Amino acid sequence: MWPALFTPRAVALIGSVGEGKLGYHLLRQMVDGGFPPARLAVVNPKGQGALGVAGYPSVAETGLPVDLAVVVTPAGTVPAVLEECAQAGVRAAVVITAGFSEVGNVAGEEAIREVVRRTGIRVVGPNCAGIVNTHHALFPTLETRPPAGSVSLMAQSGAVGGVFLAWAKEHGLGIAKFISYGNGADLNERDFLEYLAEDPETQVVALYIEEVTEGRAFMRALAACARRKPVVVIKAGRTEAGRRATLSHTGSMAGADAVYDAALRQCGALRVASLEEMFDLCLGFTALPPVRGRRVVIVTNSGGPGVLAADRAEEVGLTVAEPSPALRERLSAFLPPYCGLSNPIDLTVEGTEEGYRRTLAAVLEEYDAAVALNIAPAYLDSVPLARGVVDAARESGKPVAAAFLPGPIVAEAVRYLRAQGIPNFATGERAVAALARLADYYAQRDARVIGPGAEGAVAPLVVSHEAPRAEDARAEAKRSGSLPDSLLEPDLMAWLRENGIPVPEFRTARSADEAVAAARAIGYPVVMKVVSPQILHKSEWGGVLLGIADDGAVRAGFERLARVAAGVDFRGVVIYPLVQGAQEVLVGLFRDPQFGPVVAFGAGGIYTELLRDVALRVAPVDRAEAEGMVRETRAYALLAGARGRPPGDLDALADLIAQVSYLPFLYPEIAEMDLNPVFVLPQGVLVGDVRLIPQKNHHTADSSDSPDSSDSPDSPDSPDSSDSL
Amino acid sequence: MWPALFTPRAVALIGSVGEGKLGYHLLRQMVDGGFPPARLAVVNPKGQGALGVAGYPSVAETGLPVDLAVVVTPAGTVPAVLEECAQAGVRAAVVITAGFSEVGNVAGEEAIREVVRRTGIRVVGPNCAGIVNTHHALFPTLETRPPAGSVSLMAQSGAVGGVFLAWAKEHGLGIAKFISYGNGADLNERDFLEYLAEDPETQVVALYIEEVTEGRAFMRALAACARRKPVVVIKAGRTEAGRRATLSHTGSMAGADAVYDAALRQCGALRVASLEEMFDLCLGFTALPPVRGRRVVIVTNSGGPGVLAADRAEEVGLTVAEPSPALRERLSAFLPPYCGLSNPIDLTVEGTEEGYRRTLAAVLEEYDAAVALNIAPAYLDSVPLARGVVDAARESGKPVAAAFLPGPIVAEAVRYLRAQGIPNFATGERAVAALARLADYYAQRDARVIGPGAEGAVAPLVVSHEAPRAEDARAEAKRSGSLPDSLLEPDLMAWLRENGIPVPEFRTARSADEAVAAARAIGYPVVMKVVSPQILHKSEWGGVLLGIADDGAVRAGFERLARVAAGVDFRGVVIYPLVQGAQEVLVGLFRDPQFGPVVAFGAGGIYTELLRDVALRVAPVDRAEAEGMVRETRAYALLAGARGRPPGDLDALADLIAQVSYLPFLYPEIAEMDLNPVFVLPQGVLVGDVRLIPQKNHHTADSSDSPDSSDSPDSPDSPDSSDSL
Repeated sequence: MWPALFTPRAVALIGSVGEGKLGYHLLRQMVDGGFPPARLAVVNPKGQGALGVAGYPSVAETGLPVDLAVVVTPAGTVPAVLEECAQAGVRAAVVITAGFSEVGNVAGEEAIREVVRRTGIRVVGPNCAGIVNTHHALFPTLETRPPAGSVSLMAQSGAVGGVFLAWAKEHGLGIAKFISYGNGADLNERDFLEYLAEDPETQVVALYIEEVTEGRAFMRALAACARRKPVVVIKAGRTEAGRRATLSHTGSMAGADAVYDAALRQCGALRVASLEEMFDLCLGFTALPPVRGRRVVIVTNSGGPGVLAADRAEEVGLTVAEPSPALRERLSAFLPPYCGLSNPIDLTVEGTEEGYRRTLAAVLEEYDAAVALNIAPAYLDSVPLARGVVDAARESGKPVAAAFLPGPIVAEAVRYLRAQGIPNFATGERAVAALARLADYYAQRDARVIGPGAEGAVAPLVVSHEAPRAEDARAEAKRSGSLPDSLLEPDLMAWLRENGIPVPEFRTARSADEAVAAARAIGYPVVMKVVSPQILHKSEWGGVLLGIADDGAVRAGFERLARVAAGVDFRGVVIYPLVQGAQEVLVGLFRDPQFGPVVAFGAGGIYTELLRDVALRVAPVDRAEAEGMVRETRAYALLAGARGRPPGDLDALADLIAQVSYLPFLYPEIAEMDLNPVFVLPQGVLVGDVRLIPQKNHHTADSSDSPDSSDSPDSPDSPDSSDSL
Repeated sequence: MWPALFTPRAVALIGSVGEGKLGYHLLRQMVDGGFPPARLAVVNPKGQGALGVAGYPSVAETGLPVDLAVVVTPAGTVPAVLEECAQAGVRAAVVITAGFSEVGNVAGEEAIREVVRRTGIRVVGPNCAGIVNTHHALFPTLETRPPAGSVSLMAQSGAVGGVFLAWAKEHGLGIAKFISYGNGADLNERDFLEYLAEDPETQVVALYIEEVTEGRAFMRALAACARRKPVVVIKAGRTEAGRRATLSHTGSMAGADAVYDAALRQCGALRVASLEEMFDLCLGFTALPPVRGRRVVIVTNSGGPGVLAADRAEEVGLTVAEPSPALRERLSAFLPPYCGLSNPIDLTVEGTEEGYRRTLAAVLEEYDAAVALNIAPAYLDSVPLARGVVDAARESGKPVAAAFLPGPIVAEAVRYLRAQGIPNFATGERAVAALARLADYYAQRDARVIGPGAEGAVAPLVVSHEAPRAEDARAEAKRSGSLPDSLLEPDLMAWLRENGIPVPEFRTARSADEAVAAARAIGYPVVMKVVSPQILHKSEWGGVLLGIADDGAVRAGFERLARVAAGVDFRGVVIYPLVQGAQEVLVGLFRDPQFGPVVAFGAGGIYTELLRDVALRVAPVDRAEAEGMVRETRAYALLAGARGRPPGDLDALADLIAQVSYLPFLYPEIAEMDLNPVFVLPQGVLVGDVRLIPQKNHHTADSSDSPDSSDSPDSPDSPDSSDSL
């Protein structure tokens, strides 16, 4: 199907091509784009052609080996058109026509899918802006025809794609494929990710999405692609308003943005917030050698823009380090005395071709990457400066990003830079921002190749978003019985313990005498809590007594808790030893409508509540990833021993998070669970309290861990080791 | 002097005008810019003219009423040239020539100043890129000649100005004045701020600075200008690397960026981080009516870009609220059924002139501002859509920002929008970001007009960066004696109390018996602390004992503190009542090299140390501004009573901050002071500890509160009520 779609022998445009019609514009794009007119055909009832392309009343009559149909007929006719195409041997269709699920016409879209299932024809769209394969002169799209290159763009929004392609043309970014897949009735982002992962003409993948279906299948496809090449992603709908807008025009079910964010990072994709940033990263990835390291040097011919770039560089995590004394000496040997030899290196407006060439060549021996700024006044010929930059970059082999501006003045120099493979960014700030993300990417990729052990803080690029694999030790820990029926604290604590989760020693008591015996057995001081299925928030009811020191206090405490539970179903008390000298954190689980089980780590107290200092991952996670979660919270420093606190046992904490992350796969009945607090001790961790909410209408253990995957052959709880490390 | 500079009768270019020389380029700019050649003259030893402009060996011989000289002669000749100009009646000069203080030639720059002082000629530069007055066809600059308009730009970096002017030309932003003042040997940002504040042709001021001298004088000029018109500021050197770069090429003394940030906001300036943002705000301010309110509606013809704009809108603090049912009903009466009626309102690619016109007209009755997005495919004629937008905006009178893109496709429509006064932004995201800042600005301006009481959270636009005014009650509280000599805690506490700062009751004791008597007098439980000039960090030495409950504990405590101080100069103990149920914050003072005394508020503990949750203001501040400081910290919620804490007395806290902020003016000997902790109680506040560092080499009370102001007639400690509310 892929050759039919992207390298068809012949293409039929199906629909009216009267002047001003969509079909006319599409045909013109294809003809102007250079697809041989003899291999194009128009099909409509009148057999009317246009623009030198012959028209026929049916596909069969074209006499061409039509692999691809481009459909612009009215929505009601599309299923029949596809049927006819399939009969005529057409293997793929791009349906531009709108008016399907996006306006509530679900039946029409289902009818398309029915034809796909029955005939095997594959469909892009409907309600899409078409596709592009620059390397096959194939432009059945309404958007700008971009120059050929190695960036492939998939966009759920045709207009977003259109803007990107227009910029690509304006600024000379080469495109391999463009795919606007609209409603994705048949082929969707997963299919294209799989294709582009293998496509030798695609070096970088750019993806604009608003919502995905089957979150875990999407993650598999994305991770597989991101292992092969950089994938830059805009996920729109970051805010409530954005999400609402997304819903209103896609009608799909929204996952939480924070979960998307976690999922994208777990897959090794680079999430960006804006089209500009996406554009800059694509430019950097295609035009620059790998950025290895964060020491960047800025060579400029004017101070102010150099400072702005230096500011931004530091803000995005690059190091604008000063040149070594030896390098300074080398530079001072050939640069005029009025040049600034600190970083940014200011050649001043007198900067010459030779100045850029020799300076860049010298500094690139010491730095990991360079930005060459040229802020040109109108009288300056910037082409020689560009030559200097190009020569030095070629000689050093290291990444050199240019920022020659302003546009109208440096146009010719920018054309030269581009032709010589040096990317030019809109400003120095944008150049350093792109370099920083590239450095992140290559650092993570290298860590993956070298092995994840070396870089604990880096989220592993290979996601373990599958259920536990058979060979995984944790999977051996199997489900131990079922969830307790009562979901009372002592029952849940016992269940956690059976599942290998560290809980404190505890005893229950139904009378004051039993409570005294229990407290003595545990050893004073103890904590006593009320047990009742009707009291969920024990603290708020006064149902938690801390630091009980002797038998008398136990008796008094029992009476008090019994009074707290007066009138509700009082099941006695649970008694724990008082945990002292611990820091409190929380570990939680919940289900996202798109991605299923998600594990959360929060550093507790004000951090979680006021600062929203919570790390999320699509579950399950391994120990290294759990450690990454802890490290990404602001409260990590406290856990690690800041402010004179004893450092907590971060190893045990990471183990706990990983263990908890597997529970929803062993117990699909779990909808939500909070372990709060979890006590982090200098040695070990202990769960201080647990709250669990089971799924409503949970039927089987096999179908519910991901609501949308029950009809998928690769359901996330079925082991699948093929795309893991 | 201003008419001579900006509306000269005749201009002399002094220097060589051989082809390729700077003088030649400058002359060409002036001629091409439309300044009458008959009112131009070239002056150089050979009397050589160019480009139709006559040359003379001296200014006197030109026979023209030369008000302005543009100087490009070698650095060494500049003072003599200025001298000659002054003799010939020239009243202002723009010195383009470089090679002065920026390369260490301080004497040369001083020689220029000497001519200025002696002759009264006023100088822009040296080392500058020239000036522009579009309304006088005056273009003695090397940068792009922009279209005429009402934005005036001052830039410490000529290149930054050049980029801005090139964009202004490319995107049709009208400029009134451009001033590149280079080293600012004579006229500097303060002078130009004063001029532009009054200039009727200037509606918006844009300012790029790296460093200022005389921070408080700068604040006065900036605040005075910002009261008249919007001032958009880039202060470069936000990071260490940026600051270092700034230093290396300006040689001036750096103030801390956080203090600059506070100072700019106190003056009512709008600080931005990038040139793009500066450009967008200037565009918005000049082209849009006041943005009053944050409810924004997005009208689009494509979903994806609408979602991206909605996301950004919410992120920058706008409200993308849904239309009311009544409005929906109105819209559904004329919009096709496939249009999305939630916000963003999606007219789809079928959106028409009439669709934009009627939709915008209807929604603008309900919303405060609108963004009109048009993402045009190549076949779409966008001019009719632009007409719809223009008509609706005119009818409603409310702010409508357009984002028509991509550029090459919508060029004609954008020209139409621009001509009709509708600003077009590069993307919808940039449009909403600008609207949000404009809404901030007008909200603050309105609050100022209505009175600051109404909007406690809004930092007052009128800065009280003067010392206390005579009529101010606090100023009456006068200096009470001098700083205690010892700077020991009890002495400082007594001094604070004398100055009206609330401190707890306390007593000192030199023996265990005295301590017991003191503790009894105060009432148990008490706190005891060691007193010794050699123990600064009492807690770390074990010199603070909390919660001492009885006479025995006092005796034991005294012995223990005596042991702590064994071997150092032990001066006894100080005893306080134990303060309970308080939240702890810190209030501090320090001196910034540019801005002098700065007051700091931090919410204490981990907030300050790990989260850097500190609010700064250039001192002194009034109560309302002190309240704003508290509110801008993240821990404000806790102080206000979050998480079940009793709310603290925020009024008393604001009073304390304001009182403290006046101390460095009453006691210029103070270099630094920390009140840490300050106990915030449900009723009142109390200082828990104090540390004070006096200024080294402090001589008089009048010259040291601002290190750079001693030679200024309007030194900050001299009352000046002229520019206060």
